Amino acid sequence: MALRHYTLDFKLSVAVDFASTVPYLLSIFHEEEMTETVHETNGQGYLGTFIGQNGRFAVLRVHSHELVTIDLQCYEEDNIGQLDNLLDALETKLKGILNGKITRIKRLPALVRGAEVDRYWPTNDGRLVEYDMDRLVCDEDSAYQNIKILHSKQYGNILILKGDINLADSDVAYNKAIMNGENFAGKESFTLLIIPLQSVNIDQQVIEMSKKYMRRACGNILDNMEGDCYKIIVSDCVPVLKKFIEEGNTFDYVLNELTAIPMSTEPKEDSAWEFLRNVLDMSIKVLRPSGKYLTTADCVNHTESHRLYEEEMGKLSCPVAFTKKEATVPYFMEQWVMYCLWKK
Amino acid sequence: MALRHYTLDFKLSVAVDFASTVPYLLSIFHEEEMTETVHETNGQGYLGTFIGQNGRFAVLRVHSHELVTIDLQCYEEDNIGQLDNLLDALETKLKGILNGKITRIKRLPALVRGAEVDRYWPTNDGRLVEYDMDRLVCDEDSAYQNIKILHSKQYGNILILKGDINLADSDVAYNKAIMNGENFAGKESFTLLIIPLQSVNIDQQVIEMSKKYMRRACGNILDNMEGDCYKIIVSDCVPVLKKFIEEGNTFDYVLNELTAIPMSTEPKEDSAWEFLRNVLDMSIKVLRPSGKYLTTADCVNHTESHRLYEEEMGKLSCPVAFTKKEATVPYFMEQWVMYCLWKK
Repeated sequence: MALRHYTLDFKLSVAVDFASTVPYLLSIFHEEEMTETVHETNGQGYLGTFIGQNGRFAVLRVHSHELVTIDLQCYEEDNIGQLDNLLDALETKLKGILNGKITRIKRLPALVRGAEVDRYWPTNDGRLVEYDMDRLVCDEDSAYQNIKILHSKQYGNILILKGDINLADSDVAYNKAIMNGENFAGKESFTLLIIPLQSVNIDQQVIEMSKKYMRRACGNILDNMEGDCYKIIVSDCVPVLKKFIEEGNTFDYVLNELTAIPMSTEPKEDSAWEFLRNVLDMSIKVLRPSGKYLTTADCVNHTESHRLYEEEMGKLSCPVAFTKKEATVPYFMEQWVMYCLWKK
Repeated sequence: MALRHYTLDFKLSVAVDFASTVPYLLSIFHEEEMTETVHETNGQGYLGTFIGQNGRFAVLRVHSHELVTIDLQCYEEDNIGQLDNLLDALETKLKGILNGKITRIKRLPALVRGAEVDRYWPTNDGRLVEYDMDRLVCDEDSAYQNIKILHSKQYGNILILKGDINLADSDVAYNKAIMNGENFAGKESFTLLIIPLQSVNIDQQVIEMSKKYMRRACGNILDNMEGDCYKIIVSDCVPVLKKFIEEGNTFDYVLNELTAIPMSTEPKEDSAWEFLRNVLDMSIKVLRPSGKYLTTADCVNHTESHRLYEEEMGKLSCPVAFTKKEATVPYFMEQWVMYCLWKK
């Protein structure tokens, strides 16, 4: 049973005190049979907690600076209309007594905590985002990672690997974005796909789950590992690339969808950069003279990681040139950057 | 000074009790000099609050069902690293003592409450969404509405009317979406724009602010109210449409960006539907025989409002046909629906 957590905040132009606010609100809590405990805050304003029936719990803070915050928690099965009325009453009362001192009233949609279907998947740049997911389709741990598929009303089934939004069933925005406007007709391409950094093998279980639940995105491609114009190799990409180089196997396009590029120069990320550079170097080697390397990078706000990625390009055994493009993948909820590299 | 509000939740496969959890966590709070108050919950599990220095405040709930929730509030100027460590310690300890019973651990980005720049703008379908806004550009009340412009790192300046995300400076996605793939070259069009429902006059102040701060989106169009191929009329659209009908003035396109369509059949919405139908009826009247009426509707998840809108189309004085399209406007953070109507 989930916990609904409401917040109602008043940002003010001047600080207010206990006496001019709290006494006027107590009757509202008392009407809902919520009993007050006043806490000693060591000069940080008023902090009262209120316990009611059925697990209801509220926190009222009149901060010593220009802010009043209210938290209200209740269980999902509670009478939500009654809780809305309680918040309405608190908002109306505070609007009246703080009249002329209010610079912003913010009452956000309730945060739903511990629900069956988890709707909160922060963006890559660390923002809190609620999705419209309404059903858990499956949730499994493979040898390499946690694999979830959640159904979203507007995006269809969404594949989530290790907590990262990966692919939605509903549209081809991501595919279009990584294809970067190139025309693949009659061309030979090689795609590095769904390999988590720490593993040496591609995750067969992701293929199985995508085959079953992501059919709008995958079509019947995954039903057979080989078709008229494609072949899927379940393996670590590194030995495969090595073999291609040894055998002189080349491609018009190499697409890399391995992972978002690492975000820092911290020592713990060193191996990630090394892996990335190694794969990039080998990929450029298997490109035909007019070939292109297309890759997903990171969200547009991580400008530092783009700078570091471009720095890595200077360390390859063959000089490369590049373009980068901003792309919209609707279910990412943030703008993304795609690169296109070629031999100079 | 903003309040940072952290949450850390453990969803479990079995309920746990006070004795098997709380005693193991107390030392972590005590190390941070946070003192405990235990609250009587009438059989709804353990609820402890903890008050620390500098306004720090925590709530630990071991619910009587399969859920443990932790809230931690601190001021923005606090030692955030120390708070992260406190949450790390609580998470690690709980992971250990709840081992084998955990179905999900959720630690969300902090909710920042009362900040100078408000980053939380819920979607039309009521979801909590944090934007990447970093600067308040301007905030004014016109005679009709509150007009805000906030700067977003990835979308540029964003115009917010009455709390609704309206237009971003950075791209032409919205314009493309409402233009619905039509080619406007050499055509005559009439656009109903930025008029809040309850007002009779267009809001001149929105024009002034857009002219100044939304130049990437508006170009120099708003610098002059009339140009070679456009004319801006500051007026309620109803008398203007009436005059067009009287004078037999017709257009190839009418674009309506007045407002999202009403979302319910509640009596209070009646006048909104009436206004919408009236404007739609007059707009169809000023269309040339091959003319098209293009309009923004509502988010894709509000299917009921689309149904009601299509019902309204049957009540017009001239029969119409329509198509609808799903559109991605990146900064809306939800899919949108655009309609195209024409005379049958």
